[in-house]
Amino acid sequence: MTDPETSALPGFSACTLDRCDQVRVDPAALAEWFNDPAACRIMLRGLDPLIDGDRLARQPIPMDARLEEHALLGRLDDGRPIFAELRRDIPHGGQFAPRVWEAASILSAEELGLYGAVRSLVDWHARHGFCAVCGGPTLPVKAGWSRKCNACDAEHFPRVDPVVIMLAEYEGKVLMGRQPRFPPKRYSALAGFVEPGETLEGAVARELFEEAGIRVSDVRYIMSQPWPFPSSLMIACTAQAHDDALTLDTQELEDAFWASTDEIRAAFAGDESARFIAPPPMAVAHHLLKYWLEQQN
Amino acid sequence: MTDPETSALPGFSACTLDRCDQVRVDPAALAEWFNDPAACRIMLRGLDPLIDGDRLARQPIPMDARLEEHALLGRLDDGRPIFAELRRDIPHGGQFAPRVWEAASILSAEELGLYGAVRSLVDWHARHGFCAVCGGPTLPVKAGWSRKCNACDAEHFPRVDPVVIMLAEYEGKVLMGRQPRFPPKRYSALAGFVEPGETLEGAVARELFEEAGIRVSDVRYIMSQPWPFPSSLMIACTAQAHDDALTLDTQELEDAFWASTDEIRAAFAGDESARFIAPPPMAVAHHLLKYWLEQQN
Repeated sequence: MTDPETSALPGFSACTLDRCDQVRVDPAALAEWFNDPAACRIMLRGLDPLIDGDRLARQPIPMDARLEEHALLGRLDDGRPIFAELRRDIPHGGQFAPRVWEAASILSAEELGLYGAVRSLVDWHARHGFCAVCGGPTLPVKAGWSRKCNACDAEHFPRVDPVVIMLAEYEGKVLMGRQPRFPPKRYSALAGFVEPGETLEGAVARELFEEAGIRVSDVRYIMSQPWPFPSSLMIACTAQAHDDALTLDTQELEDAFWASTDEIRAAFAGDESARFIAPPPMAVAHHLLKYWLEQQN
Repeated sequence: MTDPETSALPGFSACTLDRCDQVRVDPAALAEWFNDPAACRIMLRGLDPLIDGDRLARQPIPMDARLEEHALLGRLDDGRPIFAELRRDIPHGGQFAPRVWEAASILSAEELGLYGAVRSLVDWHARHGFCAVCGGPTLPVKAGWSRKCNACDAEHFPRVDPVVIMLAEYEGKVLMGRQPRFPPKRYSALAGFVEPGETLEGAVARELFEEAGIRVSDVRYIMSQPWPFPSSLMIACTAQAHDDALTLDTQELEDAFWASTDEIRAAFAGDESARFIAPPPMAVAHHLLKYWLEQQN
């Protein structure tokens, strides 16, 4: 996770695949691509990646494979079609299958991004075999980019759940918090799901008030990151706090404090005496903090 | 929809309700709020608003009403708890029930924002009576902010579906397109759902390439808007096109052209000779275009 290649961007952010959406709704072209002898597929083991060197393992598509059990991911740089197998439980093979946190230090940034997309899609299919409207069985359609109910004809699309993650700023310091489940000394930016009826700016203000009791304005978007656990879209922002008095929601936050630039620099340097341990380069919070720090110079 | 009050912000963006999320997971406090004689509720007719003056109609909560059939929206400015009824089919009463587009010209910006939140939440409940994982029945929990499956215990949360909507810019002009379903002469910014595995910037670049064949960089976030049909979050951006040659996906776009500042000003002025009709103030595209135009001065 300290690989300089992957730390230039947050994890999962560098998927550059041409998704070829028009082929998804063209059954003839889709069948031709699936039957192309040069086509390949990515399989997961459970939801973990199968890895070959610094890439996700690519397999030729077996003769007896069924198109309905695959999603079209798109086209590789060399033009070859690439699919993902939609079965959730994949028999153990001989290939190296590290867990995802290890994978992040092995895969190139582009391949980690591709893995994130595949993981979210495979997980969504595995957990959406039934129709939320009527309870009937659903089947993949549009090359694995939606599912349709046999009984009531409702169509369901993969979820992407927007989450705001934000640094509140007050007099040259930013608010860092820790959740009870964090590793010792780890602090990060506060975060929460966007709710129906909210703007991003409204969600940032609500979350900071709910979790830390502070009012903010001047919310600014900084960057975004897909976070495939299972399907979040992290939207990183800064905001200006009106006051530094904190009232913590102790269900959400075990502790929080206003961190100075020196304290953040010490955390990034990994100083033993640092007040906290910074979020890892995989996390958008790491990049948000770095961005903020650069703005202070 | 030309009300100056509502045109300062895109529609549905001004919900300022204190959502009181801690009460959602505190059954004793929730029951107390529901039984508070000062508590009130909002009901929809189908998914249309019931209106009283420039506000959504508020009803006292009937003695025989069931908490499980309501979502806690939060607390009004005067401290009273406010709920939404979760039944989808609401018997016809004597109150004025215009359709939503008419409502937008009647409701204050704050009330239109509240309506958007209620509409998305009520619609989501109505369409999620069953568990996508196992097909079993689900019931509302957490004061109507999630549903739980009786059979497999899976918890399901309301959807918020991020959509990018963007102006591609090239040499002082921006790309406007029209979908076949638009009213005559209407053009707007291009838009599309964010897919699993994408950043916002990646989604903007993919959509512009898919729909118009242009490559872009320097994507910038401008503003966001909840769009409750049924649960979109519009994320408005600008991007710099590398070239102005267009290759349209005619399934998505009937036509597109690069609009000059003069052409956009004429559209906003409502000139009969204008090349196109601008998107209405309800739509974030209207505000995105206005923002871009102001930057050109």
